[in-house]
This record gives sequence, C-alpha cells and structure tokens, in this order.
Amino acid sequence: MSLFLQLVSVSKAVEEVGKIAVRCGNESVSLEDALHRILAQDVHADVDIPGFTRSVVDGFAVRAADTTGSGDSIPSILAFRGRIAMGSSSGIPVRPGECIYVPTGGILPEGADAVVMIENVEQLGGEVLVRRAVAYGENVLFFNEDFARGDAVCPEGKRLSPRDIGVLAAAGCTTVPVVRMPKIGIISTGNELVPVSKKPLPGQVRDVNSYVVASFVQAEGGIPLLFGIIRDDRNALRSAISRAAAECDAVLISGGSSKDDRDMVAAVIGEQGEVLVHGIAISPGKPTIIGRCGTTPVVGLPGHPASAYIVLIAIIRHLLAGMTGETESNIRVMQATLGQNVPSSKGREDYVRVAVRDGIATPVFGKSGLLNTLVQSTGVVRVPADSEGLETGTPVEVILW
Amino acid sequence: MSLFLQLVSVSKAVEEVGKIAVRCGNESVSLEDALHRILAQDVHADVDIPGFTRSVVDGFAVRAADTTGSGDSIPSILAFRGRIAMGSSSGIPVRPGECIYVPTGGILPEGADAVVMIENVEQLGGEVLVRRAVAYGENVLFFNEDFARGDAVCPEGKRLSPRDIGVLAAAGCTTVPVVRMPKIGIISTGNELVPVSKKPLPGQVRDVNSYVVASFVQAEGGIPLLFGIIRDDRNALRSAISRAAAECDAVLISGGSSKDDRDMVAAVIGEQGEVLVHGIAISPGKPTIIGRCGTTPVVGLPGHPASAYIVLIAIIRHLLAGMTGETESNIRVMQATLGQNVPSSKGREDYVRVAVRDGIATPVFGKSGLLNTLVQSTGVVRVPADSEGLETGTPVEVILW
Repeated sequence: MSLFLQLVSVSKAVEEVGKIAVRCGNESVSLEDALHRILAQDVHADVDIPGFTRSVVDGFAVRAADTTGSGDSIPSILAFRGRIAMGSSSGIPVRPGECIYVPTGGILPEGADAVVMIENVEQLGGEVLVRRAVAYGENVLFFNEDFARGDAVCPEGKRLSPRDIGVLAAAGCTTVPVVRMPKIGIISTGNELVPVSKKPLPGQVRDVNSYVVASFVQAEGGIPLLFGIIRDDRNALRSAISRAAAECDAVLISGGSSKDDRDMVAAVIGEQGEVLVHGIAISPGKPTIIGRCGTTPVVGLPGHPASAYIVLIAIIRHLLAGMTGETESNIRVMQATLGQNVPSSKGREDYVRVAVRDGIATPVFGKSGLLNTLVQSTGVVRVPADSEGLETGTPVEVILW
Repeated sequence: MSLFLQLVSVSKAVEEVGKIAVRCGNESVSLEDALHRILAQDVHADVDIPGFTRSVVDGFAVRAADTTGSGDSIPSILAFRGRIAMGSSSGIPVRPGECIYVPTGGILPEGADAVVMIENVEQLGGEVLVRRAVAYGENVLFFNEDFARGDAVCPEGKRLSPRDIGVLAAAGCTTVPVVRMPKIGIISTGNELVPVSKKPLPGQVRDVNSYVVASFVQAEGGIPLLFGIIRDDRNALRSAISRAAAECDAVLISGGSSKDDRDMVAAVIGEQGEVLVHGIAISPGKPTIIGRCGTTPVVGLPGHPASAYIVLIAIIRHLLAGMTGETESNIRVMQATLGQNVPSSKGREDYVRVAVRDGIATPVFGKSGLLNTLVQSTGVVRVPADSEGLETGTPVEVILW
C-alpha cells in the first residue's frame, strides 16, 4: 500500500513543521560566544546609557542660546573657563557667556547644553570666538538618551548580530541567555550511495546530501550529527532513525528518492510515530515526507541535492525557527525584474533558480538534478501555486541563497 | 604637530587598505569544517558527474521517438522488458518499441534516451501504454552533464556556501585547500573605558567596541584576539600595538576619539611604521587612521561604536578581503525607495542608517553616537561624495547589515 498521494500546499507543510517543532531549552554563554545565537529572553539595560551627558566632539561646551546668530563675520565671544580632562568632571559650571573645553566623550559641564566643534572657534587667550551657532543638544548625547536603565535593549528570539553584541555589551550583559543549538541528525539513504572519499563506480553516486544538509544546518545555527549512509533496508533504516530520533532534536533523512524507498521511509516513520505529510505541491521537492518519531520531528528530503536544497530553504528553515524561537526571518531577499518568461503549473509552488545581474533576474534553466545550477544562481524566485507562470518584466522577490 | 588634516576619499582609503593587506597563507581542512572558509585554489572534479546516464524519476526508460504523438486517447504501446534495480545495470538494451522500468537515480539502459514518468503510463502485463510523449533527454541526466572530470567546480577566492560544500563533495574534495583565517588584534583605548563586567561611574563608559569589532571580525571569518583596554598613555599604547602587530595579521585600534588621542595613536603607528591615511571623507567615521607597523596593517577606528561600525563595513571589509583573497563581495544589498529626503555635504560620503519596510527605506535619524539606531536599522544607504543629498522617492541601494 502506498502512502503517497495527497500533496499538501507549501503553507500547510510549513504549518505542520511549526506544530511538531519542539522548542529547545535555554543555556547561558559568555558574550564572546554569543554571536549568531538566538536570544532566549529579553535583555534589559542594567544602567542608563549613556550614564552622563557627554560631548560627541572635541570642542567647547556652551549654552546654545549664547551662540545665537554667530557666524564668520560676527562671532559670539565667550569667556574661556578651562578644560575638562577625559573621564573627569570639571567641577565648574558653564554660566551665561562662558565656555569650557571638552574632549570627545567628555562629561558635559553643568549649565552647558551644546558643544561647538573646535573647527568653528578661535581661542584668543581668555576669550573664545564662536563662528557658528549651535542648537540645544547639538554635539551632545544626553543622559540615558540611548537606553534608560531597565529598557529592553534586545528582544527574545533575535539572532544576535555584531551590532546586537555591542548593545548587549553596553547593557552589561556578560552572560547571555540563549537557546540551545538544535542537534539535527542527518541520514542519507540509498543503495547507490558511496562515501565522498570513494570514486563512484557506474551506478553509484557520492553522498552529497549529507554534506549539503549538514552545512545548511550549521549555517542556520544548528549542530549537524551525521549518521552516515544507510542501505535501503527496512531494518537498517528503522534502527538508524530510532537512534537518531533518540539522540537529536530533529532528524533529516535524504534519499529514498524512488517511490518504493520513499514508501519505506514513510512506513518506518509511521511505525515509530506518525506521518503527517507525504508529498508537497512544490517543485522541485515534491517527494518530501514530514512526520515524527515519538516527539522528534523527522523529515524525509528528496534524494537530489538540488531538490533537497529547495526543501531546506522553503520548509526546514521554518522547522529550525520553531525549535529555536527565532522571531525574525533569517531569509534575505532582493527585488529584481524577471528577465525571461517562467512557465509554471497551477496548484504547485515553483522555486525557480535565478542569476541576478544589474537588477535583472534571469532563470538558470536546467534540470533540477544538476548541482551546477545551484552554484550558478543567486537565489530562487517563488512562483505562487495559484499562478500559471510569470512574464518577462515582472517585478519579483529573489530569495537569496 | 597634528597629523590630522588631509581627508582622503573612501575609494582612496579602500585602495590603501588593499595595498597594505598581506595575503594570509593556505591550509587544509576537512570538508566538514570548510563552511564559510575562503577557497585557496580552484577545485576540479576528480570524476565525471554524473558518472553514468541516469533517470531522475521513477518510470520507464524508452526511445523518445517511440512516444511521438502519444496521448491519453492514443497511447503508444511498448513491450515491457523488465526492471532495473537501484545501483545496478540492466544488461539488456532498450530496442525500438521496448521499455524497461527504472527507479529514480537508476542507470538508464543502453538504447534508451528518455524516461516516461510512472504517472503517465499504464502497465498491462507485458505491455506498457505510454500516455504522454517525452523529448530526447527528458527526465534523464546524461553522463557528465553536470561537471566533466577535470572541470573547475569551485573557484579560488570563493567563500564556501552550503551549496559549494555540496559541489565539493560531488567532486571528491574531502580535504579542502582554504586560506588561513586572519588573526585580528583588537585594542580599545581610552581613559574613560571600563570592562563590560563593571558598572560605569560618571564619566566612564563600557568598552563596547572590543565586542562590536570582535564579533564583526568573527562574522566575516577572521579570528579576533582581544588585547583589552589600554589607557591613553603613549608607552602603554606603544607596547600594546607592537605586541598585537607582532602576533596578528592586522590590528584594529578603537577609541582615541579626541584629537589628542588620535594624534597619539597616529604618532605611535608612525614610529613603528607609517601612517598612510589620517582622516577619511566619510560620515560617520571621519577620524580613521590607516597605517602599518612593520608589515602589519594597523587601523585606528573612531571611538563611537556606531561610527566604528560604518568604518568596519566601508573599509575593514576590504582589508579582510585583501588578506583572504576573497573575490566575491560578502556584502548583501537590496533595492528600495527612499521614504524621506536625506541631506548630505558635498565632498563627503555619507552612510545613512535606514529601516526598510515594504520596499521603503526610511532614514533612522538620530545622533551617530547612539547604539539604538544601529539595532533599529536594516542597513545603510551610501550617499556619494559628489551628491548634496537624496530626495524622497529616489531608488537607493541598501547595504544590509
């Protein structure tokens, strides 16, 4: 009996992986190790940032009102009251008609509300000629203008960029609460597969998928665990899947590309749990199986690396996001104009590889089984299921690899 | 004597870092560890890919000419000659008027030149009714159609993506020649700086830059080495810079944001080598120093983390690319429409932070010293030096963070 049959839409498949994704637990890492990790809870500033009103330039702290109307021809003349050293306070306030030199980053003296850049003044003994008016707050960062103590500086679910790491540093977050990196078990099936280190004989192919899937998982922030090549044998497959499901947070099985093998993969998943999806209305990538063994999500990917990759992009990214709680999409897109007609079948979501040059997305036609189309393309254009194709000149969104 | 003065253009600064960048040596890593590394030399396929002509579907191997005109109403009738198992050869050829069942990935039997999908046939004992015509080569990958033995599958200087890893696997490249990851020494200077673990007192700020710069370096594929916070003291600075220059492939010093401190950083670099650039016509990021100590590139970044970040994006990326030989830019851009006027000064390249929503890039105005503008923006729009600003509605390219 074949379980193959009822193709589900891509959005339905995404919904299903969202339902079976089990959120990984949290752990703490040092700030040095937090780059690209997913934040497990909001982080709040432990201090006001900045903690004092400071100058952002080298110049003279003034009362802005004292500089009104100043210019090259009619400078304001202020009394010079001294210099502030970096990191220390002046002790003396700036009163009307006065100014104090302050370096970049220095504490703004009491009374001052703006800083005139050193380029715009001339110092003549005890007097300073201001040749440019400044507005209230100009060249100054006010106390807690960036973040106030207690403010959330970075939200739960964010994948931490170098800029976020900077904000966490400013907020005093030396130990960062992050989501544990999901462990993803990877199995390749197929009697025709040989390890990459071997030269394939006629009828054999190298196990490319273990590497493609593992490096995709790694790039997305998961930990790939390779379970190797499993022959198309029910007992071997059963034992590999149950071992992987027990040790990992999710399992990705690639291969089983012929109908018989797919059915075997589905049957083994069904024995140990349930099959939720057996076939997706996506091209390439139709022979995809979504299920679970116990509570561990298990997905059967197509055997062709190029097809498997589309399923990684379109479906598995959502599974991983469900496991880590990542809120913002990690997907980068760009707008382009389609350079050629793209035919498509209604009822099927097509992912067409394109190469983008100067804003023109040109389809990289070629059989979906070819690896070279994967490396020659910039990304894919999604043709929605309700479309019969896209015409030359259509503005499209390119999902960047 | 001030060394500050002659602002150079961004393109000139990029040219200078290109000149002083010393290309790192090569090393070998296993394919499992090669993700995101820079390929040190072209990799060639050690075999033909595929190594045999194979079916990409489950179906019947035929001579395409035998199916001409086949349809639902008038099927072609072919003689069934048996089944091929995965990974093995049939031994029997397909002669005119015959067909042989072949699974996805199976070897195409001699004589056949196309495969009819199983969905489009009906098998009746020894006869197979073909209800759809196939073209020559349809549903087949021919011998070495993807890559021929000896073809370059991946070029020197490429940053390896998961798709590239797949192609290297197919090419039998289990040990990958890559460029050594550059070691980047990171120094923060400033009497006002305190470690992130401390709560800053009035006048003090946390050393945010060490973390921002280190995580940027890490994200770009370098190895950050932190040399900590150095007081604004000439001897301390001299000793830190010479130690870092000796141990690392390049050194990034941040801080020295006041004119006096900048001059001191420049003077110390000058003593141990030469200062090539002291001030760039870029906003934010003007107070940037480019030089070298011995043969080690040393760059002085602005003290404000938000300004320093723009210099990392606009200048340091090029330094790192020069050190690794990366050929393709790692920079992601998107097209958008400017949602507000952006004023700019002629003669200065402005990097304006923008938040992009629905294709509209809205400037995130706010003082350049604020960290919150860095995390609230999607990227930056470059306003060229010869422009006085950009108007609402202008199509712009957003450099994504």
